[in-house]
Amino acid sequence: MTPGRPVPPPLARPILPARSFENDSTVNDSLAAAYGATSGESGLIPLTVARRALKADDVRIAIDFCGLCHSDVHATRGEWGTQHYPLVPGHEIVGSVSAVGSAVNDFAPGDLVGVGCMVDSCRECRSCLDGQEQYCENGLTGTYGAKDARNGGAITQGGYSTSVVVDRRYVVRVPDSLDPAAVAPLLCAGVTTFSPLRHFGVKEGDTVGVVGLGGLGHMAVKLAKAMGARVVVFTTSESKVPAALELGADEVVLSRDADAMAAADRSIDVIIDTVAAPHDLDPFLRTIRRDGALFQLGLPSETMPPVNPRALIRRRISYTGSLIGSIAETQEMLDFCAMHHVVADIELVRADQLNEAYDRMVAGDVKYRFVLDTSTLQAPAEEADA
Amino acid sequence: MTPGRPVPPPLARPILPARSFENDSTVNDSLAAAYGATSGESGLIPLTVARRALKADDVRIAIDFCGLCHSDVHATRGEWGTQHYPLVPGHEIVGSVSAVGSAVNDFAPGDLVGVGCMVDSCRECRSCLDGQEQYCENGLTGTYGAKDARNGGAITQGGYSTSVVVDRRYVVRVPDSLDPAAVAPLLCAGVTTFSPLRHFGVKEGDTVGVVGLGGLGHMAVKLAKAMGARVVVFTTSESKVPAALELGADEVVLSRDADAMAAADRSIDVIIDTVAAPHDLDPFLRTIRRDGALFQLGLPSETMPPVNPRALIRRRISYTGSLIGSIAETQEMLDFCAMHHVVADIELVRADQLNEAYDRMVAGDVKYRFVLDTSTLQAPAEEADA
Repeated sequence: MTPGRPVPPPLARPILPARSFENDSTVNDSLAAAYGATSGESGLIPLTVARRALKADDVRIAIDFCGLCHSDVHATRGEWGTQHYPLVPGHEIVGSVSAVGSAVNDFAPGDLVGVGCMVDSCRECRSCLDGQEQYCENGLTGTYGAKDARNGGAITQGGYSTSVVVDRRYVVRVPDSLDPAAVAPLLCAGVTTFSPLRHFGVKEGDTVGVVGLGGLGHMAVKLAKAMGARVVVFTTSESKVPAALELGADEVVLSRDADAMAAADRSIDVIIDTVAAPHDLDPFLRTIRRDGALFQLGLPSETMPPVNPRALIRRRISYTGSLIGSIAETQEMLDFCAMHHVVADIELVRADQLNEAYDRMVAGDVKYRFVLDTSTLQAPAEEADA
Repeated sequence: MTPGRPVPPPLARPILPARSFENDSTVNDSLAAAYGATSGESGLIPLTVARRALKADDVRIAIDFCGLCHSDVHATRGEWGTQHYPLVPGHEIVGSVSAVGSAVNDFAPGDLVGVGCMVDSCRECRSCLDGQEQYCENGLTGTYGAKDARNGGAITQGGYSTSVVVDRRYVVRVPDSLDPAAVAPLLCAGVTTFSPLRHFGVKEGDTVGVVGLGGLGHMAVKLAKAMGARVVVFTTSESKVPAALELGADEVVLSRDADAMAAADRSIDVIIDTVAAPHDLDPFLRTIRRDGALFQLGLPSETMPPVNPRALIRRRISYTGSLIGSIAETQEMLDFCAMHHVVADIELVRADQLNEAYDRMVAGDVKYRFVLDTSTLQAPAEEADA
């Protein structure tokens, strides 16, 4: 546990089997307070999770903050198919190292670190060997809700928790100069937008379009600006114009205004499309210059409208996608953010506000990311007594 | 006219106004025998076209051969919207220089040369300045059926003709070592497949998929093989398997065989898709590896089925397109073909077989490109007498 932070009392619903109750042991499993779901309808409730005893390459992290990603909502509510419950979500983790395994020499207790969307991958496929483990051909091991093959097939449990144990290869270093709470969303929303911008090679003088102004979109604006790009935000709602400009957008185009879209014809080098609902891409493709690209980051659950290949052929435009980022890229992104003073715009929430926060996320009522303060994870007294 | 080739007699239907009848003049317009359409229903008939007097940068070419591209059929039959008639199609032109303008010092009479799909572009936009004039932002000037802005807005007339006058910037040099008739299709089908293969950076050891085995597809197989790639042909018809293997394909996958497609999962680096009819891309996208691409080359007149962005996101695959190639790339392709002894598989046709050839093209009955022998362009005697 974080030094100086009270150890939470025994929780109301210790759902997960604990083979040992000796907290902070590096030899035996340890327990951590958490919030998670026991079914698609349970909402988020206090839970206790067992964290594995440290293996040689493991790092135990006392979690300080964890961002709330929209995918957490889908996963806990069972909207993405069969889910393993109980489930503790959270993959935007910032905390400090509390203990390390015998083979770890790149991290030491007290180091400020982060964990993003994955805690393992096969380490053998072409993607892993290329340092692109997010595209692991055998499937990356998600930070929560995934079978952890290298740890007996246990289901991973995420960062809405007081601690986590992660192999050092999937842990990144968090620069001290940034607000750690506002860094948390960089571990998913940050790197998910940084990676395609870098992959495309965005440089000073380029024009970057951003479709959608949520958690990912607001990071895309900040990161593209920091890369020296001119940024155009596309939004359907006039009410978001001031906020987009405040974030640093050079221009805001109302995407339902045909004249405004026509005026943007062939003015953009690359579009970062963060909208996860089905939407017609053709009007956006028309705004892209020769050899430009549209990166779709969200996977809608329903079919997207057909794409007219005309713009793709006539200007050699790529319609492509991107999945989070590699571990090396995540580190590069954090270092870039430190250099350019970029963090997420966040609203800090207590554990007992998580369900309300989820409802607000679904309603789009957040600027731009909720972050859980894990010091609030103790079970409420009345629940513990029940 | 080509030395030793008889000057054609006056033709039956001299449709185009001729301001001068002095053939081969470099001062006045000249006449050329041709075959073209006078309406969407006329079929191809003998015509006379006026070729402009040589301007300083012009090259006059005595045409020996011209390939028949599927787009010629669409254009002459008026299937691609409003068309300017009379229309002489043909943009796969090989011939020899018969005269040059006063400022031309890179070509001389007797040089074997070629002209592809464009005879001009704005020369000022970003694409033109980048040497990517096929993507001219003000619209390239097609070799036929296009308004020729730099020549008084006259409608360009193509290569089913005994001669043509083209600005030297849009003329390429044809290597002497190759069969000139079989070179003609390289000017469109060749460069259209060469350009995306090069743009993707295909190299020895890569795997290239080719969808569709027509004029473009058969060139894609030959060019990819010459680049050292392993080539997988996707076809819907079992009857094409032997022909694909004969062309050099290492493997043929029947794209309607779900098991065969599943076995090809993530085995391809880049797909060259030459099918111009609507077709579902998802089964093909699933065969592509991380960071691979699918280049669509044909623009279907009807809507394509929707693309599932899953593969795009999960493996950062690009769904993209490509339009012919630049002039420099066309030259590079011809030099590459000379070095690797690559030409098209052709069937030579006489002018009076053009209509039959078109019907056979529509029926898919050609291996793999018809080429017009322009020495047969004289008007049939009975027509001339009519």
